[in-house]
Amino acid sequence: MIPVNPDRFRSDLHALRQIGAAGQGKGVIRPAYTPDDIAARDWLAGRFAEAGLEVAWDPMGSLFGLAPGRSLLMGSHSDTQPEGGWLDGALGVIAALEIARAAQEAGGPAVSVVSFQDEEGRFGVTTGSAAWSGALDRTAVDGLTDRDGVTLAQARSAMGHRLGDWIDPARFTGFVEMHIEQGPLLDQTGGKIGVVEAIVGIRDMVIRFEGQQNHAGTTPMALRRDAFQALSAFNTKVNDRFANVVTPATVWTIGHVALHPNAHSVVPGRASFSMQWRDIDPDRLTRMEVIIRDTAAEVADDMGMAAEFGSMLGVAPVAMDAGLRGRLCVAAEAETPGAWREMPSGALHDASNMARLMPSAMLFVPSIGGISHDFAEDTAEADLVTGLKVLARALG
Amino acid sequence: MIPVNPDRFRSDLHALRQIGAAGQGKGVIRPAYTPDDIAARDWLAGRFAEAGLEVAWDPMGSLFGLAPGRSLLMGSHSDTQPEGGWLDGALGVIAALEIARAAQEAGGPAVSVVSFQDEEGRFGVTTGSAAWSGALDRTAVDGLTDRDGVTLAQARSAMGHRLGDWIDPARFTGFVEMHIEQGPLLDQTGGKIGVVEAIVGIRDMVIRFEGQQNHAGTTPMALRRDAFQALSAFNTKVNDRFANVVTPATVWTIGHVALHPNAHSVVPGRASFSMQWRDIDPDRLTRMEVIIRDTAAEVADDMGMAAEFGSMLGVAPVAMDAGLRGRLCVAAEAETPGAWREMPSGALHDASNMARLMPSAMLFVPSIGGISHDFAEDTAEADLVTGLKVLARALG
Repeated sequence: MIPVNPDRFRSDLHALRQIGAAGQGKGVIRPAYTPDDIAARDWLAGRFAEAGLEVAWDPMGSLFGLAPGRSLLMGSHSDTQPEGGWLDGALGVIAALEIARAAQEAGGPAVSVVSFQDEEGRFGVTTGSAAWSGALDRTAVDGLTDRDGVTLAQARSAMGHRLGDWIDPARFTGFVEMHIEQGPLLDQTGGKIGVVEAIVGIRDMVIRFEGQQNHAGTTPMALRRDAFQALSAFNTKVNDRFANVVTPATVWTIGHVALHPNAHSVVPGRASFSMQWRDIDPDRLTRMEVIIRDTAAEVADDMGMAAEFGSMLGVAPVAMDAGLRGRLCVAAEAETPGAWREMPSGALHDASNMARLMPSAMLFVPSIGGISHDFAEDTAEADLVTGLKVLARALG
Repeated sequence: MIPVNPDRFRSDLHALRQIGAAGQGKGVIRPAYTPDDIAARDWLAGRFAEAGLEVAWDPMGSLFGLAPGRSLLMGSHSDTQPEGGWLDGALGVIAALEIARAAQEAGGPAVSVVSFQDEEGRFGVTTGSAAWSGALDRTAVDGLTDRDGVTLAQARSAMGHRLGDWIDPARFTGFVEMHIEQGPLLDQTGGKIGVVEAIVGIRDMVIRFEGQQNHAGTTPMALRRDAFQALSAFNTKVNDRFANVVTPATVWTIGHVALHPNAHSVVPGRASFSMQWRDIDPDRLTRMEVIIRDTAAEVADDMGMAAEFGSMLGVAPVAMDAGLRGRLCVAAEAETPGAWREMPSGALHDASNMARLMPSAMLFVPSIGGISHDFAEDTAEADLVTGLKVLARALG
C-alpha cells in the first residue's frame, strides 16, 4: 500500500478550489482556457515539481507531472463547467498527485499525473484527452468553436509559452482515474466505492413527427394529425417495448422537445425531439435503436403522419481493463467491505479516450444527492479519503 | 326571399380583396388600424352610402351602414390576420351589404350592416365588438397594447375624424353573421351549410410538473423524476378518461410545451404546458376540468413530483337564438336539401359578443381543406352564393 497522507490530499483539494471560487458554497468557475483555469494549472505545475515530477504541457494545454521511466498515469481534469463543483475533475487530479507524491517518497512505484484540458467540453467532449488519443483529429481541433464563436486556436493561445509537444503515450503502462459518480446510485444505496466496469456507449438522435397544423377550436379530434399526440404515443410505446430489452443500468431520455408553432390555440403540426439512450452493451444499443425506429414509423403510420430521423450521434461503449478493475475490486473490498459495487459509468470521462491508448480503469466515490455540474456538488470528506486509500492499496 | 344579386356580391368580394392584397394567391394583409384596413373601411363606407345606408363609425372604428328605424344587424369584420385570407370576416360583411342593398331595393325588410374593428385580436379577442357589447370595459380598452407595445389609443387615432359615438344597440332586432367555417367538417363531409347551434366555451390553463433535473447518463431510470414523462403520462390518462365525457364535437389540445432545461443530455426537471378545451356545454367543460386537475395531481403524486396549475382562462359558451337558428335551418334545407348540418362554432366570433345585446345567429360555409388564417384560405364560389341565398331566404 502506497503510504498516502489524507490530510495533505484534503488540504490540496481545498487549496485548488480557492482558484476560481464562485463565492457560493464550494462552487468553482474554471472553464477551459480562462485565466482561472490557467492559474489552477500553474498552481498544479508547482505542486507537481515539488513532488519531484517533471512538468510538461502538451499542445492542447493538458498538464503532465511525469515520473522518470515507464510509469502508471493517473489523473483527470481541472477545468470545470461554467457553474461547476469543487470535485468534478479536481478530485482525480489531486488524488493522483497524492499517490504519485507518496509513491515517490516511498521509492516506488512510478506514477505520473495528468490534468487534461477541456474535459467539460467548451470546444467538444473531453477535448484534450480526445485530441491526445486520436479520437479527435489533432490537425482539426484548432477550428472547433465555443458557444461564443471563439476558436480553440484563439483560446489555447492564452496558454502561451507553456504549450509544448505531444507526450508519448508509450511511456505509460496504464491509466487510472478517480472521479465522483455524478449520479445518485452510491449515495442512495449507501455505497462508498464504485469500480467502473465500462463507460457507456451513447446514441442520440433527433426524431420529427410531421402532422398537420390546425385551429385548436375548429378541428374535430377525429380529423386531427397532432404531432404532440404522436410524440406522447411514441414515448408510451417505446417505454413498454424497452422493458424486455434493457437492464436496470440502461437509461434513455427525451430531454429536448420543440413543438411548432407551440401556441395554445393551434394543433401542433410538428414535434421535434431528442431521443438519447446509453448502455455498456453495443448490441443492446442496436436493439433499442431498432425499437425506436420501428415504433416511430408505426406511430406515424397509425396517425397519418411522417416520421423523420436526424443523423445519429454514436459513441461506442468502452470496457475498463480487467486487470486494473480486479485490483480495484480487491482493494475496495479490503477498505470498505460490502460497501462497494461494480457499475457502469453513465457519463463520458477522459478514461473513455485513454482506453484507446492503454489499459484504463476508473473508481467512483459517492455524489451527495447525485448532484454535479452545480455549485452544490459535494461528497463527504471521509468518502474522498476512502477512495484515495482504495487507490493506494490497489496500486501499491 | 330577398332578391339578392350573386354577381354583384361576388364582384364586391373580389374588389375588397384588392385592398391589402398580399400578392400570393388570394391572400390579404389588413390588420386592424393599418392603412389598408382603414382604406378597406373607407371603400366599404362608400358602398354602404351607395346602398342608401347611413354611414356611422363608433369610437373603436367599427363601421356601420344603418337602415332607418329598427333593423336587423348583419355583418362581421374586415380586418385580417397578419397573413390572412380573403374571406375571413370579409365574407360576412359583403354578404350583409348585398342583403341590405337588395332589401333596400325591394322595399324591405330593414337590414343594417357592420364591419367590426379588430376581430382578429391585434389588441385582444374580437376587440371592437367586445367593447361595444360591454364584454370589454370601454374605459379600459385604450390601454391595451399589441405585440410591439403600441397602445390601442395610439392605433385608433389613425382613424382620425371618422371616429364617432357608440351606436345604440336598441335600434337592432337581432344579429346574423355569415362566416367561413375555418375547420374541415363541412368540406370533408360534403356539407354546404352549417347552422351554428352555439359558440363553444373555452377553458385554457397552464399546468406545470416540477420534477428533478438530472444527468441523463448517470441517473438510473428508477431514480428519475422526469417531468416530460409526467406530461406524457398525464396526456395518455386524460385522453382515456375524457372518452366517457366528451361528444364528437368536444376538442382539447396540448399546443404549447416548454421543458427545462430542454437539453438532450439532461433529464427534464420541469415541464410547463398548455391544456385547452372547448365545448358548448358549460357542465361538460367543468367535468373535463375536474378530470384534468385530478389526473395531473395523481400523476404528480405517482411520480413524486409537484403539479402546479396556472390561472384559468374561461370564456363561457354562447347559445345562438332559437328563432333565428330555426329560420336558417328551414332556409338551408330548402336551398341545399340534406347537405347542411347544425354544428358548434369552435372559434370565437363577433356574434359571441352580439349575443349579449340581442338575439344572434351564425351561418357557416365550407373552408377548403379547413384552412384559414393563411393566404391559401378559400371556398368554392358556388358555396359562397349558396350561403348568400340561405340568408336571403331566411331573412326575407
